[in-house]
Amino acid sequence: MAQSIIILGGDGFCGWPTSLGFSQAGYDVTIVDNLSRRKIDVDLEASSLTPIQPISKRIRAWKELTGKQIEFVNLDVSKQYNKLLSVIKNAAPKAIVHFAEQRAAPYSMKSPFHKRYTVDNNINATHNVLCAIVESGLDIHLAHLGTMGVYGYGTAGMAIPEGYLNVKVEKRPGESVDLEILYPANPGSIYHMTKTLDALLFYYYNKNDGVRITDLHQGIVWGTNTPETLQHEALVNRFDYDGDYGTVLNRFLMQAAVGHPITVHGVGGQTRAFIHIRDTVNCIKLAVTNPPKQGERVQIFNQATETHTVRDLAKLVSKLTGAQVRYYRNPRKEDPENALQVKNDKLLAMGLNPIRLSEGLLTEVLEIAKKYGDRCDTSRIVSTSTWNKSIEPDFSGSPDPV
Amino acid sequence: MAQSIIILGGDGFCGWPTSLGFSQAGYDVTIVDNLSRRKIDVDLEASSLTPIQPISKRIRAWKELTGKQIEFVNLDVSKQYNKLLSVIKNAAPKAIVHFAEQRAAPYSMKSPFHKRYTVDNNINATHNVLCAIVESGLDIHLAHLGTMGVYGYGTAGMAIPEGYLNVKVEKRPGESVDLEILYPANPGSIYHMTKTLDALLFYYYNKNDGVRITDLHQGIVWGTNTPETLQHEALVNRFDYDGDYGTVLNRFLMQAAVGHPITVHGVGGQTRAFIHIRDTVNCIKLAVTNPPKQGERVQIFNQATETHTVRDLAKLVSKLTGAQVRYYRNPRKEDPENALQVKNDKLLAMGLNPIRLSEGLLTEVLEIAKKYGDRCDTSRIVSTSTWNKSIEPDFSGSPDPV
Repeated sequence: MAQSIIILGGDGFCGWPTSLGFSQAGYDVTIVDNLSRRKIDVDLEASSLTPIQPISKRIRAWKELTGKQIEFVNLDVSKQYNKLLSVIKNAAPKAIVHFAEQRAAPYSMKSPFHKRYTVDNNINATHNVLCAIVESGLDIHLAHLGTMGVYGYGTAGMAIPEGYLNVKVEKRPGESVDLEILYPANPGSIYHMTKTLDALLFYYYNKNDGVRITDLHQGIVWGTNTPETLQHEALVNRFDYDGDYGTVLNRFLMQAAVGHPITVHGVGGQTRAFIHIRDTVNCIKLAVTNPPKQGERVQIFNQATETHTVRDLAKLVSKLTGAQVRYYRNPRKEDPENALQVKNDKLLAMGLNPIRLSEGLLTEVLEIAKKYGDRCDTSRIVSTSTWNKSIEPDFSGSPDPV
Repeated sequence: MAQSIIILGGDGFCGWPTSLGFSQAGYDVTIVDNLSRRKIDVDLEASSLTPIQPISKRIRAWKELTGKQIEFVNLDVSKQYNKLLSVIKNAAPKAIVHFAEQRAAPYSMKSPFHKRYTVDNNINATHNVLCAIVESGLDIHLAHLGTMGVYGYGTAGMAIPEGYLNVKVEKRPGESVDLEILYPANPGSIYHMTKTLDALLFYYYNKNDGVRITDLHQGIVWGTNTPETLQHEALVNRFDYDGDYGTVLNRFLMQAAVGHPITVHGVGGQTRAFIHIRDTVNCIKLAVTNPPKQGERVQIFNQATETHTVRDLAKLVSKLTGAQVRYYRNPRKEDPENALQVKNDKLLAMGLNPIRLSEGLLTEVLEIAKKYGDRCDTSRIVSTSTWNKSIEPDFSGSPDPV
């Protein structure tokens, strides 16, 4: 009998290709999604560069192509607890993959409304899932999409370990003890903060109720399609390019494709961890097939395959396309320059074969961006959210670093 | 001109005497409260042993006695953000004292409803206050009532420092770095967990927006009246004795007063930190008059004056009153025995002169319990919430430790 899996947020940028990936692999997939990401686009007057189809059309196209049925339940995980519990009891899944959170840092910083929505939505969603797993009485593995941003960047100049940190604490003068602790949280936005709160929810539910949990601290995702989404145009994945939801490398490639200057914030000295969308799907499959055992603590993996500075990515895209680089005052409160090394030994040991940034894959994204370039609203490209009252947004930028 | 202060949750067990304390000290006090604690009593079919008066009567009695006016606004801090923001802008307070959270661990563990209410209420309340302080544009010091329970108990056998922990981390073989981190969170219930989430909200809003914050990690409060609540019977403070909201020492004294056996959970080897309600008020006054400076990190004080094992408290009350001790299977998932040492140097350095557990003060509580003993519903005494599915509640207990 096929194994059942629930994908919370399965209509989103990472959720949709993940849902197809599990369906392709033979799982009975149930997508739970309230379509909030599409509705936020309505408010932002933005939209995916790619013409994504309604969820029912996506599911129908997949069925027609492959004969595989994906179930869809429209519900708000953060609000409709009883409905969520029913879905879980009915599906009795081996695992739940949890993407059902507001996932853009700039969106989370736009206004008090956006801050409050992000905290309320993300914390109640995560807590409802945990609470429902316990109430269901079923032994379900929860795989959650976290972020590398929980660590802060470049702390103490050491390679960032996977979730836990070994420390030495002086109990009394001359007597020390070695402890392994959750890596101290240092979030850089309201969005990132919610993921650090999630980590404590996981810690507690694992300790008190024995819930088996994997938390995936993901880098910045780039790319758009996977082998499954490429099978039919109705399956195309979303591609965000706006100043709130677009992620840096995809934005740069798309800017080059439509003739917009490449928008670097500050001097571009931010080093960040990256992962291709295909590896997102690969990693989640590895996590689901390698759950922690009953009684084990929360399993934490760094889901990232390489690190780059924003400046280097801008140069790379500029070299590949001839696009000009333009520097905007940094809307974020963050270090202008940071080093970053990330350990990702655990997923590698499970067999991850990382897809590295290469001209071929960059060109694939460029092609998508060119193909749908006429759908771009260039007024949505520049970031307008700033991190606090002392930072003015910069709509025009300048040719040299600010 | 008198300084303005807002007390969120100012109708509750700690909030009411704190509100009177600040009013007595000459502050213009605004109480914000949605009366949730009184409404929870309706659901639990429990009530304060003392006949507390409605908030309007309390305020009127105080005005008649002292000529001092306390303002009251009925609003839900976790839900009514815009109304909260207006109150803050209008009062333009020097400080906000934040008690507006569900504060009982057993209540937070009763059912999925109670878990979800506690998380939703506490996190959104704290986040709304922080968000509103930033939006108001005012430089307001936030003093929050946290709990010693964020630390877990007896970690590594060292005296628990005040909020931060010095650790040594190995960057690479042979090279270490010293860091000061937030003390690793180790909550023992959903309620305690919400306070560990609060700590990360404080950390972030302090870092990103410069909000000045003091987090008070309070021990278990005992006693009931303060010099202000004693001035008139209409000002009497609440006294909880039920299995959800009653705190251990007050429960033991009240059990002795009404002829119920003293209810020890497990073997009573739990060591906990304690503080008298009068010192709660004294400490909060010290915190408000000693705010962190602009640009300083979150200030964290341990608000506790002594530690005792539950077993020793039971023996003490038994000796004082002749009441019998009865042992109940522990409804909590916790260590049966733990050591606990707590640093409280910071409040001592500010001038706190601790009120220690003494026969005189124990007798004062006993007198209150006897005076109102006919209001006691003994069926509400035994704890019925258990921490997880593997723990059965114990309604009968036994004369010897289980």
